[in-house]
Amino acid sequence: MALAERVRHADFLSRSMTAEQAAQHVAHGATVGLSGFTGAGYPKALPQAIAAHAQSEHKAGRPYRINVWTGASTAPEVDGLLAAADAMAQRLPFNSDAMARKKINAGEIDYIDMHLSHVAQHAWFGFLGRLDVAIIEIVGVTADGLLIPSTAVGNNKTWLEIADKVILEVNTKLPLRLEGMHDIYYGTALPPRRVPISLTHADNRIGEPYLQVDPRKVVAVVETHSGDRDNVFSQPDANSQRIAEYIIDFLAHEMKHGRLPQQMLPIQSGVGNVANAVLAGLLHGPFDNLLGFTEVLQDGMLDLLRAGKMKRASATAISLSRSAYEDFEKNIDFYRERIILRPQEISNHPELVRRLGIIAMNSMIEADIYGNVNSTHLMGSSMMNGIGGSGDFARNGYLSFFVTPSVAKDGKISCIVPMCSHVDHTEHDTQIIVTEQGLADLRGLSPRQRAQAIIDHCAHPDYRPMLQDYFDRARQQGAQHTPHLLGEALSWHQRCLDTGDMRK
Amino acid sequence: MALAERVRHADFLSRSMTAEQAAQHVAHGATVGLSGFTGAGYPKALPQAIAAHAQSEHKAGRPYRINVWTGASTAPEVDGLLAAADAMAQRLPFNSDAMARKKINAGEIDYIDMHLSHVAQHAWFGFLGRLDVAIIEIVGVTADGLLIPSTAVGNNKTWLEIADKVILEVNTKLPLRLEGMHDIYYGTALPPRRVPISLTHADNRIGEPYLQVDPRKVVAVVETHSGDRDNVFSQPDANSQRIAEYIIDFLAHEMKHGRLPQQMLPIQSGVGNVANAVLAGLLHGPFDNLLGFTEVLQDGMLDLLRAGKMKRASATAISLSRSAYEDFEKNIDFYRERIILRPQEISNHPELVRRLGIIAMNSMIEADIYGNVNSTHLMGSSMMNGIGGSGDFARNGYLSFFVTPSVAKDGKISCIVPMCSHVDHTEHDTQIIVTEQGLADLRGLSPRQRAQAIIDHCAHPDYRPMLQDYFDRARQQGAQHTPHLLGEALSWHQRCLDTGDMRK
Repeated sequence: MALAERVRHADFLSRSMTAEQAAQHVAHGATVGLSGFTGAGYPKALPQAIAAHAQSEHKAGRPYRINVWTGASTAPEVDGLLAAADAMAQRLPFNSDAMARKKINAGEIDYIDMHLSHVAQHAWFGFLGRLDVAIIEIVGVTADGLLIPSTAVGNNKTWLEIADKVILEVNTKLPLRLEGMHDIYYGTALPPRRVPISLTHADNRIGEPYLQVDPRKVVAVVETHSGDRDNVFSQPDANSQRIAEYIIDFLAHEMKHGRLPQQMLPIQSGVGNVANAVLAGLLHGPFDNLLGFTEVLQDGMLDLLRAGKMKRASATAISLSRSAYEDFEKNIDFYRERIILRPQEISNHPELVRRLGIIAMNSMIEADIYGNVNSTHLMGSSMMNGIGGSGDFARNGYLSFFVTPSVAKDGKISCIVPMCSHVDHTEHDTQIIVTEQGLADLRGLSPRQRAQAIIDHCAHPDYRPMLQDYFDRARQQGAQHTPHLLGEALSWHQRCLDTGDMRK
Repeated sequence: MALAERVRHADFLSRSMTAEQAAQHVAHGATVGLSGFTGAGYPKALPQAIAAHAQSEHKAGRPYRINVWTGASTAPEVDGLLAAADAMAQRLPFNSDAMARKKINAGEIDYIDMHLSHVAQHAWFGFLGRLDVAIIEIVGVTADGLLIPSTAVGNNKTWLEIADKVILEVNTKLPLRLEGMHDIYYGTALPPRRVPISLTHADNRIGEPYLQVDPRKVVAVVETHSGDRDNVFSQPDANSQRIAEYIIDFLAHEMKHGRLPQQMLPIQSGVGNVANAVLAGLLHGPFDNLLGFTEVLQDGMLDLLRAGKMKRASATAISLSRSAYEDFEKNIDFYRERIILRPQEISNHPELVRRLGIIAMNSMIEADIYGNVNSTHLMGSSMMNGIGGSGDFARNGYLSFFVTPSVAKDGKISCIVPMCSHVDHTEHDTQIIVTEQGLADLRGLSPRQRAQAIIDHCAHPDYRPMLQDYFDRARQQGAQHTPHLLGEALSWHQRCLDTGDMRK
């Protein structure tokens, strides 16, 4: 397809060039705002051109590093290539790329792990410094110069607003019929001029379907033609299925006892196999007319929409496996009626998450016996991915689940520990912990009551006696609000660092 | 003053009785919702009568314990007496009473430390169980049967709504001319029927001046005649004054660089001497037409109002020293024009804190080098007071300061540590750490950058080399996103438990 068919505005078309030419606008030391959220809607050409440029600069003995801001994670051809080329000095607010992770944990990239709902406003406030260039994937430009967004909205609205220069990547492989699926809210403002966000139901549209850009800032338009990263999900395993069953039983129980309305509240679901298992469970569960209000639409939510179990879903990105994407593209008119893609400051907004009463379900790395949750760090120091939107939803939701298998690494690591090696969600923000062993409902419990519930219901049998022993001994000495043995509290993690096994 | 002058509704008047008679409505095992927030507006007579009843039951060999929910802290004659009488099984969401603290840390009271903005909704959702009796201090009843609130609103609206029975304490010592100072918002609802809260400026009134109660639930009206707890503040010491100076300089600097609007955003200030020093600093600072949007109005904010530096202040309670209270009562017509008292679910509401762009200032027990903050626990296990509203404001505010002197206990304890012994505010939620040594601005910094800033600017010179040594050695081994030595991370606290001194 010729670029002119996608870019129906002469001004923009006249600025078309190659990615290599466009990359000249990204100088050493620049801060760059990329589109992209959970492997969707990221620029396909510029990052590669920038990485190549960095390598040739390095070869010539010149420094070249940039700061990279995104919506959330991108793909190997973005974070992976830029990290491999030693071209990233700073990275925010979320990463799941293995190569970038390696450089972050080697201390070579300054990674800032932020609540996804905070990023746009902190950039707007000026707290993160200037944004030099925005590089944004779109699928077309209207005759009026409005931008048709791609498969993710993320922080694109904000990057387009605050960047000095804008580079647009027009992806001609992604369907133009995405047009109309997005809902870009232009009612945000800075304090003291903020007003209520009018959204009162998960499927309200409160904005417009296009992104706006000041045409004078657009320095380059680059054509690309390749799809988003493939997201590979394994079939839900037995553990994930059991976790899903506990959650669905619990929701049904809460509804029966009047602690949930008869019409299920909107669902937020984190990323990954357990999350998909829960959504698969809902496909055959007792709840109908579901609404989704979440960050990322993955295969499981598309299944719910297709089956008619879910009416509509709101998110900021669509991140699918190959087969789910093929279905999505083939039936895009069906999905466009049922999917709303918003900026992440709206999809994750505390005001909306609390008002709508979201049911939040997020995975974690570990929980301690008092209900503190670690979502980000392995053994206290090593960054896995990041907090993402889990805090936005857990703090403000109606109900908040944190889920994990009870053990990792063939049982060598317990995901229930005496004390978390890093805390992302405090005891004040966690309600329900679920593993394949069972569910601990922590609402209205004191720390000591929580500890017994988590040990009894969530710990793996291999670790349950060790945890009980720790808790019992901690109850023999010292202050008893949150009994701990500080000399031992992190010894499980230290043992794992020393021997690879928390048990010995 | 005769009760009839305060209670202008015959139905209510006919239910007047002694506190001892009224206490018969509070059975063993009952859950009781008390008024009271930060030593203001708590019931003056019933808790004493309940404590006495508990003691006589215990003497007779019968069990007697109740669950006590409040707005926040009360006074020795409430929490202190009930704790001393072993009459409390459960307590939420905040306590600062020494006797109750002792029983909490002895494991004799199940204490649930909650975000203050969460309490009302979790009670409404049914997550905390049934509320049997509400005991609410008021200063009068109108001819229409509406309740004139006392010096704190707290959770009173919610307790009146959800309790099976209501006992009213009419305090004839507190001025009836409080009438009109309160703004009780009756627009809350449960999901999925929630709508935006219309407040767009800190001094908007969006509700009505009275509390409502179903008269059929009122089982007793009790007259009382004694003032609120005296709040004793020491004169700001040199450390508090330096902290205040750093904050005010920083705010002026941010304004100059366009990261704060020229009209200062509304101020939230935590409780205590450092907070009052900051407010005292603002009295002579460069900012005018200030607005307060906070939990508790203490002496410092009244000074700002009186001096005309602050236009209006919104809170949920007024908690004053004796002399400030005398001024307040004498000039109540002046203050009524300038003070708005709201339910704590509104004064602390994440939606409003974010929309208004609050400048949040809260004290803490300790911060670690990565910017995690402990607001609640001494040495990991011992509860001090509770998280209060610090999380509501820190997570959602425009700017968030956490302040503490750099050392405690004559230098035996460093308030900057390698790793917090308990985390209430995570690295994702803290922005600016201030001690008398200086200010560390953590915005846009990676963990390693934060650590160096905190060690350099906030640590006490006695501990700075020890912290630098820890950080340097942690940078020699293991993953480098958040360098830690897990075997040592909590050793400072353990040493303090062993020797009383973190240094040796």
